[in-house]
Amino acid sequence: MTKTLAVLLALSLAVPAAATPPPLTLEQRADEALAKDENAFGFVEGLTTEVGPRQAGTEAEARAREWAAAWLRMAGFKNVAIEPFMMATWVPGDIARARVTAPFAQDLVVLPLGNSAATPAGGIEAEVVFFRTVDDLRAAPAGSLKGRIAYISHQMRPAQDGSHYGFAGPVRWVGPGLAASKGAVGVVIKSVGTDHHRNPHTGGTSFPEGVAAIPAGALSLPDAENLERMFARAMGRPVMLKLEMNPRQIGQTESGNVVGEIAGRNPSLPPVLLACHIDSWWNAPGAFDDGAGCGIIIAAALNAGQHQPLRTIRVLLAGAEETGLWGSKAYSTAHINEPIAVGLESDFGADRIWRFDSNFRESNPALHKRIAAAVARFGVSAGTDVATGGADLNIVRDQKGALVDLQQDGTRYFDLHHTPDDTLDKIDIVQLRQNVAVWTQVVGILANEDTAILTGTPVPAAPAIMQK
Amino acid sequence: MTKTLAVLLALSLAVPAAATPPPLTLEQRADEALAKDENAFGFVEGLTTEVGPRQAGTEAEARAREWAAAWLRMAGFKNVAIEPFMMATWVPGDIARARVTAPFAQDLVVLPLGNSAATPAGGIEAEVVFFRTVDDLRAAPAGSLKGRIAYISHQMRPAQDGSHYGFAGPVRWVGPGLAASKGAVGVVIKSVGTDHHRNPHTGGTSFPEGVAAIPAGALSLPDAENLERMFARAMGRPVMLKLEMNPRQIGQTESGNVVGEIAGRNPSLPPVLLACHIDSWWNAPGAFDDGAGCGIIIAAALNAGQHQPLRTIRVLLAGAEETGLWGSKAYSTAHINEPIAVGLESDFGADRIWRFDSNFRESNPALHKRIAAAVARFGVSAGTDVATGGADLNIVRDQKGALVDLQQDGTRYFDLHHTPDDTLDKIDIVQLRQNVAVWTQVVGILANEDTAILTGTPVPAAPAIMQK
Repeated sequence: MTKTLAVLLALSLAVPAAATPPPLTLEQRADEALAKDENAFGFVEGLTTEVGPRQAGTEAEARAREWAAAWLRMAGFKNVAIEPFMMATWVPGDIARARVTAPFAQDLVVLPLGNSAATPAGGIEAEVVFFRTVDDLRAAPAGSLKGRIAYISHQMRPAQDGSHYGFAGPVRWVGPGLAASKGAVGVVIKSVGTDHHRNPHTGGTSFPEGVAAIPAGALSLPDAENLERMFARAMGRPVMLKLEMNPRQIGQTESGNVVGEIAGRNPSLPPVLLACHIDSWWNAPGAFDDGAGCGIIIAAALNAGQHQPLRTIRVLLAGAEETGLWGSKAYSTAHINEPIAVGLESDFGADRIWRFDSNFRESNPALHKRIAAAVARFGVSAGTDVATGGADLNIVRDQKGALVDLQQDGTRYFDLHHTPDDTLDKIDIVQLRQNVAVWTQVVGILANEDTAILTGTPVPAAPAIMQK
Repeated sequence: MTKTLAVLLALSLAVPAAATPPPLTLEQRADEALAKDENAFGFVEGLTTEVGPRQAGTEAEARAREWAAAWLRMAGFKNVAIEPFMMATWVPGDIARARVTAPFAQDLVVLPLGNSAATPAGGIEAEVVFFRTVDDLRAAPAGSLKGRIAYISHQMRPAQDGSHYGFAGPVRWVGPGLAASKGAVGVVIKSVGTDHHRNPHTGGTSFPEGVAAIPAGALSLPDAENLERMFARAMGRPVMLKLEMNPRQIGQTESGNVVGEIAGRNPSLPPVLLACHIDSWWNAPGAFDDGAGCGIIIAAALNAGQHQPLRTIRVLLAGAEETGLWGSKAYSTAHINEPIAVGLESDFGADRIWRFDSNFRESNPALHKRIAAAVARFGVSAGTDVATGGADLNIVRDQKGALVDLQQDGTRYFDLHHTPDDTLDKIDIVQLRQNVAVWTQVVGILANEDTAILTGTPVPAAPAIMQK
């Protein structure tokens, strides 16, 4: 008996079989996540409590990066790093007031939209012109809003797939720019949202090249409906609004992406990239958008990585998503020459996943079917849409790589999205855990896939798999 | 045939029977209210749209009085009047900011409580002392809060009868005074409410004789829970809060009660008094509290008065209820020598009436049973509590008169009460109409009652009933 063998024998005797239960299968790990995952909730609870709101490009976002990087290191992630980048930063200021002054007098609750200009100190007062839709505003003659404030309404409704955001979103995305181009001195919109609380939905807007930004705010839905009732009762008298806000552009400041890895057995294979974003709007701790998403991807990476996977699993907590995908673009620019095997993002709240889509259903049907079969027990159906990936997956789209979308139930997402109400108490831990379970299952399959994910062909560059 | 008879005959021929449908019975009028009343919603929609928030003692409350008096006149009420009185007026200011500065940094949403003092300009910053209940605060040693800010929590839960307001209310009613008496420089409470939106519940507080008012604010429930999580994570480090608010007492200003009548056939009989309050807190248009209540009593008076009742029905839209029942006290002082037959108030939102109580169940069981039987078809049970009347019925309590309580479902009342979320959209018109139907039925019975309501004895002072 060699000395080495004797040592090994001693070790094996010292660890009786009963004390080393067989390792959990991927399926068992996903089931355990469904029953009792604490990592996702722990992450979002910590982030919302110890950091809170974290507007892109501000010191609060910097604290969030440090907090998240420390969390990843503590949880055992490797190669944890903050990758800084510069961005043009807008801040909301601390004054946001709106008051109808005629024919009735009443305050309305308003918050500025991202990229809104400030009013002069003391505010502006002007007649409001009512547009029922953004298309009605489009049809207004050039110059017709000179000296006036535009109000833009819509009829957004909750939808499981969130698709009414596409229907109503232009009111916020392009409405203010359209109003400015027609001479408006300000614009207020009915919040692009679906709840009835006095908490406006902010979000980014933009102004066309050559059109100066104007003050642009969102009214809460109860306030917008009240303003519309005032129009109905004004009997042709002008509806006058006084608006005061002091947001501003503060020039270039630093933001950054947070990355970390569960190292795979074969580091030469392209990694699986799991994305979320770490920034939030200033008006809420960002539990749904997107603390929960970061918690979900991190928890899934830890579960899938419990046994070293074939491929590296990389998490990307992108900075400055809300104000223009700055982090997503910076990450793609910096890493465009490092191929990604497949990208997935969680950025639609914390409610149940109900559908799985990929962009390789036709090119790699066997893998698509294998994943669909594996998540069916969690109530996830196989979709036929072509996955397009989340906002922070620019690199995968730029590489024309493989994408998986795990579609969450968005019925109540637009009750909370971009509002002060996006707080921890809105998270249903049962649904959050279902997300972690589905992600664990999917990431575990993808991270152990030894063919190219988009095509199913053997990975040409892969050396023999290094067994542990 | 006399000339008179000929004229009468001609008249009767000129108006064929088919064109004069029989007048609706009281029951039919109540049923019609259930199906299609528009007056209650019309009143509250108009008040919340054309006036909005109407803080006691301010110009906004004065506008509300004028608006309501005009509405009553237009609807056909007689003897419509505004009865002014003077009151000590507190106003909320326009700054309300709270920020935890250590061991974590995050803004919290706060609103001042009625009678709160202002902080110095720029705010105060102090260590927070956490009290889980108002009893814990009571037990704190004298002087132990010197230089500190008290935070008071509670565990209020929704209850159909609203009884948890009594359980949690002392946190707001007496908590700030207790904290001030022990040396605190400020106090923040978990809002006395049951919702999870970033909209604090304000409401009145008071300070004991000889104890100077301190800055006192309510945190929204999500913010209060966040603060409590910070305490759990502080590991003994002090939790520091910066608080800035500028409410103030502005001395004596004018408020007023609005009254109106449906004249009875026998003006010498004591009238039936229906009460609500016209003021609201400054932070919301006061749809539930108490625009709806005013709409309900007015609509019921109109329905019950469609055929001239025996007794006069008087409506009292009291001023300045929220800040200390100023209108209720002023009305009692001015009219104490004019007996009221029975008083009823609507001031608990707009949800369904589920129980009927009176204070004459034992002294006039026949009438109590008759009312109970008449409202059973609307899903209203007969209670065994002794009715105590609403806040604006001081005069009836001072006269030791008859009272009826029509108990509304308060399950969601404390989601909205005293918050910015108390807006028109919260009113369910189906439930609002059920209120009007029940009130129509009850007021119609009481206004035609020819015995003393409290005792059932023939009214001694009543002359022969004047038939129309």
